[in-house]
Amino acid sequence: MMSEVQKESIDTATRMTLLGQQARKASQVLRSSTTQQRNNALGAIAAELSQQRDTLLKANAHDIARGEREGLSEALMDRLLLTPARIDAMIAGLETVAALPDPVGGIDELRTQANGLRIGRMRTPLGVIGIIYESRPNVTVDAAALCLKSGNAVILRGGSEAFESNCAIARCIASGLEQAGLPGHAVQLVETTDRDAVGALITASEYVDVIIPRGGKSLIKRISEQATIPVIKHLEGLCHVFVDRHASLEMASTIAFNAKCFRYGICGAMETLLVDRDIADAFLPDMITRFKDAGVTVRGCAAVQALADVEPATEEDWQTEYLGPFLSIRVVEGLDAAIEHINHYGSHHTDAIVSDHFGHTQRFLTQVDSSSVMINAPTCFADGAQYGLGAEIGISTDKLHVRGPVGLEGLTTRKYIVLGDGHVRT
Amino acid sequence: MMSEVQKESIDTATRMTLLGQQARKASQVLRSSTTQQRNNALGAIAAELSQQRDTLLKANAHDIARGEREGLSEALMDRLLLTPARIDAMIAGLETVAALPDPVGGIDELRTQANGLRIGRMRTPLGVIGIIYESRPNVTVDAAALCLKSGNAVILRGGSEAFESNCAIARCIASGLEQAGLPGHAVQLVETTDRDAVGALITASEYVDVIIPRGGKSLIKRISEQATIPVIKHLEGLCHVFVDRHASLEMASTIAFNAKCFRYGICGAMETLLVDRDIADAFLPDMITRFKDAGVTVRGCAAVQALADVEPATEEDWQTEYLGPFLSIRVVEGLDAAIEHINHYGSHHTDAIVSDHFGHTQRFLTQVDSSSVMINAPTCFADGAQYGLGAEIGISTDKLHVRGPVGLEGLTTRKYIVLGDGHVRT
Repeated sequence: MMSEVQKESIDTATRMTLLGQQARKASQVLRSSTTQQRNNALGAIAAELSQQRDTLLKANAHDIARGEREGLSEALMDRLLLTPARIDAMIAGLETVAALPDPVGGIDELRTQANGLRIGRMRTPLGVIGIIYESRPNVTVDAAALCLKSGNAVILRGGSEAFESNCAIARCIASGLEQAGLPGHAVQLVETTDRDAVGALITASEYVDVIIPRGGKSLIKRISEQATIPVIKHLEGLCHVFVDRHASLEMASTIAFNAKCFRYGICGAMETLLVDRDIADAFLPDMITRFKDAGVTVRGCAAVQALADVEPATEEDWQTEYLGPFLSIRVVEGLDAAIEHINHYGSHHTDAIVSDHFGHTQRFLTQVDSSSVMINAPTCFADGAQYGLGAEIGISTDKLHVRGPVGLEGLTTRKYIVLGDGHVRT
Repeated sequence: MMSEVQKESIDTATRMTLLGQQARKASQVLRSSTTQQRNNALGAIAAELSQQRDTLLKANAHDIARGEREGLSEALMDRLLLTPARIDAMIAGLETVAALPDPVGGIDELRTQANGLRIGRMRTPLGVIGIIYESRPNVTVDAAALCLKSGNAVILRGGSEAFESNCAIARCIASGLEQAGLPGHAVQLVETTDRDAVGALITASEYVDVIIPRGGKSLIKRISEQATIPVIKHLEGLCHVFVDRHASLEMASTIAFNAKCFRYGICGAMETLLVDRDIADAFLPDMITRFKDAGVTVRGCAAVQALADVEPATEEDWQTEYLGPFLSIRVVEGLDAAIEHINHYGSHHTDAIVSDHFGHTQRFLTQVDSSSVMINAPTCFADGAQYGLGAEIGISTDKLHVRGPVGLEGLTTRKYIVLGDGHVRT
């Protein structure tokens, strides 16, 4: 006799296979759809969301009530909440994505070989994308829009907290797709809170081409360890600003302060400030006062402690992404020591130098192995919108395929095209 | 008390960590090396191989003798053998790679944002590459050259059959690197035949950025399943040629014959021929005779069997990469059916259409989801040298990062660079 657990798990596996097959089929249709069709679908989804406002708010109220019963944290509850303004923002997001250029179909590097064969590379959709995310229901719309625009089918697995909201949003999306003559299966929500569904999704290599997890570090770590499909992951942002001996100290103060204090919770926030010993005396006392006045707790190495009243920084501080009002400061022996510290302790996310010395900035640019390297700009600029990507599906801390903010191009790949005239290989 | 097995396995783990740390350190030096330094190293390695011919041949003779004792197949023995001519080819390969343009350091898409920030993308080395390969000792030189040229450190794990040859080649490489003032650890051979070394290499995510396996399907499958590091993998090439109803039948015959018979054993060889029903009568009888005359065993669907004396093709034939003198032929109802067959049964490697109809060729190009899609050219052209890449580290059947033949560019990544003047985010 089969236990309840086994039955449930078989059902989930079967359901996930079905979703996968449907997604693969829909991706074939999307591959040959026109830009206009996909843009029409984005518009129809926006109209549907607008019409279904009350339904969405009602579904969200269920999630909110359950969240309250289950004692979710205030931060989680805020992320979960849908308001008319947040629905407007989702609609505006769809319009933004519709207005972006189509990333698909372009051919570049087309060159004629000696034998007359013309060989180039054509940008195409990846195929089927799996997105696993936590409580924000707006991700359901944002992710669907980016995948659709880039010609991909998508399977969405949202957090169980937002289950009702996500289901209501998914119904609007399916309806919009069908109104535009595209298959409703182009965007599918995993309509179960069964955890086995995640396991099935991240190993369905026959049906899913890439997994994009969006959420906390532990979620992303677990998924990238267990997935047998390539994962575009965004791990932590342990970002540095290095103040070179050739920096304008006024500019350095402006940049360091903005890098820390623009917003503590973003992955581009500076967590460690590195200062060249040559200018530490002149720079640090005022800088530290400025941070303290803003409510930032400063921890420093011995040299920093000798210059200001700060907590001692330990080895652990150099390895910590605070995501809060804390900052570690270290005095280093110069550019090379700064680069070494960053490449050793950093998370290869975003790192900046403040310097007026051309050679130093160029060495920093070349030698720092991070997804974004900045000169005379604060690390908090690491963001798809700031980079002009129009919209962002995440920030990749991987090196393969895409590094840094991932826009529509990151959801595509390039195939070779070979144009002949009856050529033969001899 | 610790067993022998445990001791050996701890030793291997420790050794692999050491290799990893040394590689990471060397990769930092390579990252800031000049093109000239890296080209000098390639030249010095070539000179060293030339001087050490006798040593190389002697080491290879040991491998050959052991291979004979162990009864290796004739094919494996041939791949293992080093001859003066093959050493010359390795040297010529180094010179070819040295002459290629440096893939690293270029900046593109540099644009000024509305706030004056200039943002672009700079091509950089991946870092440390792990290459796992089978018996051909020339891969030791070829892979090292491509990694070095692209500014990457590499850890090489060759087959145990070629152990002595690989060690002798690795000594030449280390010596050449040092003569050029680059760290000898930039190219390291795993000098143990312990199988645990592979397991340690493909999970050393702290030290290795990407794994490239080169070898049989089972090796690649196992590695990509067990690796926790991204893998650029080359699985099978189940390639198709589709003869459209608008094809010149003479050109179709030329292309189909070349696609199958140029060389049976390459991954770009055609394995299944698809023919539009409209021209099957006119095309197939002569075509099949031509294949049979060349010694190719033909299997066909019922419609093909009605036109010529061929073996029946089963469902399994549509799924088989023969890599030999076998061919399956299927009559299909037209372009859409051909595309559906290819996307369903193919391995997304290389597929071709023969057609004079513009619209049909464009639909085939867009809708076939393969790393190379060809018009009026045989699939056997799928090769880095034919594509003008200069040299090839493999052919990727993955969709992320690189698809198709992988040259130097595939061994690099792009980071964002952000150039400011004291900008702040508000």
